[in-house]
Amino acid sequence: MGSASDEASTAGKVISCKAAVIWAVGENPVIEQIEVAPPEAGENTSAMHPRLLGHEAAGIVESVGEGVSDFTPGDHVLPIFMGECKECSFCKSRKSNICPKFAVNPMRGTRMVDGKSRFSVKGQTLYSCYCSSFSQYTVVEQQCVVKINPNAEMDKVLLLSCGAGTGLGSAWNIAKIEPNATVAIFGLGAVGCSVAEGARVAGASRIIGVDVNPAKFEKGKLFGITESVNPNDCEKPIDEVICEMTNGGVDYSFECVGLPKLMESAIKSCMIPGGLAVICGVTASRDAKMEVMPQLIIRGVSITGSMYGGWKPSDIPELVERYMRKVSRCFLQHLHIHLHL
Amino acid sequence: MGSASDEASTAGKVISCKAAVIWAVGENPVIEQIEVAPPEAGENTSAMHPRLLGHEAAGIVESVGEGVSDFTPGDHVLPIFMGECKECSFCKSRKSNICPKFAVNPMRGTRMVDGKSRFSVKGQTLYSCYCSSFSQYTVVEQQCVVKINPNAEMDKVLLLSCGAGTGLGSAWNIAKIEPNATVAIFGLGAVGCSVAEGARVAGASRIIGVDVNPAKFEKGKLFGITESVNPNDCEKPIDEVICEMTNGGVDYSFECVGLPKLMESAIKSCMIPGGLAVICGVTASRDAKMEVMPQLIIRGVSITGSMYGGWKPSDIPELVERYMRKVSRCFLQHLHIHLHL
Repeated sequence: MGSASDEASTAGKVISCKAAVIWAVGENPVIEQIEVAPPEAGENTSAMHPRLLGHEAAGIVESVGEGVSDFTPGDHVLPIFMGECKECSFCKSRKSNICPKFAVNPMRGTRMVDGKSRFSVKGQTLYSCYCSSFSQYTVVEQQCVVKINPNAEMDKVLLLSCGAGTGLGSAWNIAKIEPNATVAIFGLGAVGCSVAEGARVAGASRIIGVDVNPAKFEKGKLFGITESVNPNDCEKPIDEVICEMTNGGVDYSFECVGLPKLMESAIKSCMIPGGLAVICGVTASRDAKMEVMPQLIIRGVSITGSMYGGWKPSDIPELVERYMRKVSRCFLQHLHIHLHL
Repeated sequence: MGSASDEASTAGKVISCKAAVIWAVGENPVIEQIEVAPPEAGENTSAMHPRLLGHEAAGIVESVGEGVSDFTPGDHVLPIFMGECKECSFCKSRKSNICPKFAVNPMRGTRMVDGKSRFSVKGQTLYSCYCSSFSQYTVVEQQCVVKINPNAEMDKVLLLSCGAGTGLGSAWNIAKIEPNATVAIFGLGAVGCSVAEGARVAGASRIIGVDVNPAKFEKGKLFGITESVNPNDCEKPIDEVICEMTNGGVDYSFECVGLPKLMESAIKSCMIPGGLAVICGVTASRDAKMEVMPQLIIRGVSITGSMYGGWKPSDIPELVERYMRKVSRCFLQHLHIHLHL
């Protein structure tokens, strides 16, 4: 993603640009000069380093591959870390926004359906991850990018391509928070603050923010947090504290960190009956486990997950339009500052 | 519940009748002559034995207490193991069918709001459980009983007061199974067979029954089971077997036994994304725990519980009418035989 500095077309040509490359597992990214191939075929192996990360972005189409008719150079777009084939049963239904063909899978070294990487660095194949946006230029499948209003501020609406979109969608699409509902949010990062904004817009009566970093509480108020709790200041388990604060638990709890123990707390913070725990955080290990008491489930607590807030990529242009109509405009501006972009 | 054998009214009088009494924890019930007080006030203690169990029933109103206007002697009714105050926020919403005031709580020695038991045996207080239907006569709160069509066969429709109602409601109200969906049912007792019937009526394409008792498979076909799997005959974990049978998992899985390990299997048998595991079984211990992989949740598997299939007691008269209109009529007759009533 980017815009070539010279006037000559880069269509069909390799582009050399700067990108943040991870050379091996556990190493920090290093800015390198890389080569980005134009949209065509190649090979992939099971090795996945060096690797180019990055999953949130906004950009301008530089060139398009053969058969791409929905995009033209100059279009303003958001690449999305998951895609939408629009042909499978999942894409044709509103039941899930996850298209198995373009689902998140960090075990793959490229998301291209042909299995090849479009990147190289120092003569080596550079493997991809999601939309590989930690680069001045990237290549993505057309199923994983959406055209947006060219007047939208790209440095703000790019937040809708993951964090802010996930939070808002978790509140609106997954939990479907109704007026006067009570909410607890575990973790006040980009996703958690965006859940708060979504809950505020939906008319929640109480939005309790939980974080171990007290600096986040003041900022959280900008996004709708009405009360804050720091587990480190509590003598009881945080779920007991929240159940006491809310006379039995909240209508909706959101785990926005990715820690199994915190997910357990979010589940136990739910109202019996009727409470819903929404898992937005992704655990570091795919094999991580959490303990759940079946008694809570049979007594009316449900658990669901939020992958990108339930949005299909094709929903995102309208989300950008909402921003243009100033719904949640301040929110994205605050979040932009909050994240120190 | 019952009908006094003599013509004289029993209103306001103590009734002596036969009932199955549990004298101490772990002991089998013994048929005893007990005394059932008419509907008025008394006391309760924390001791809960001797105890009178029973939570499924149909009967005829013998007498009513002061202030009861919706029922008159002679009405055909189903007592329900949970009640409906019709005044709280839960009763006023369709979000949950669990009214906290009349929720299932086996730790109480009576369900009466005044805290007293209406039963005695050999001069001792006889504690209650749910609607204490293992007696020729019982006393229940008006919030825990519904009037039904007097032409309904009581020995069939009584099954709707728990097992059959829970299964049908789990399929229709909780999972909301749609045509062509795939289903796996863990445990083919009254609840599991009723889930199968609900899934069949809803148009499920595959209904896989899981049980360790092969005798249940042939009977299961009467209720809609299309395929059967005995975990004892499988070399792989049952969830892997089901995922292989269904190319990735079922749309809906139902745990109808109450075993945490089986609940884990039901959750892992769900389709990624979009699968829903419905927990219908109640664990023996309230502190039981199950292990859940957050990765399954974030990738689109949800978990919810089914307490009495989501029915509010006031929904049940219409369920009886459906039986009268022959929707699921055969089913209840089969289930009646299946349960050897």
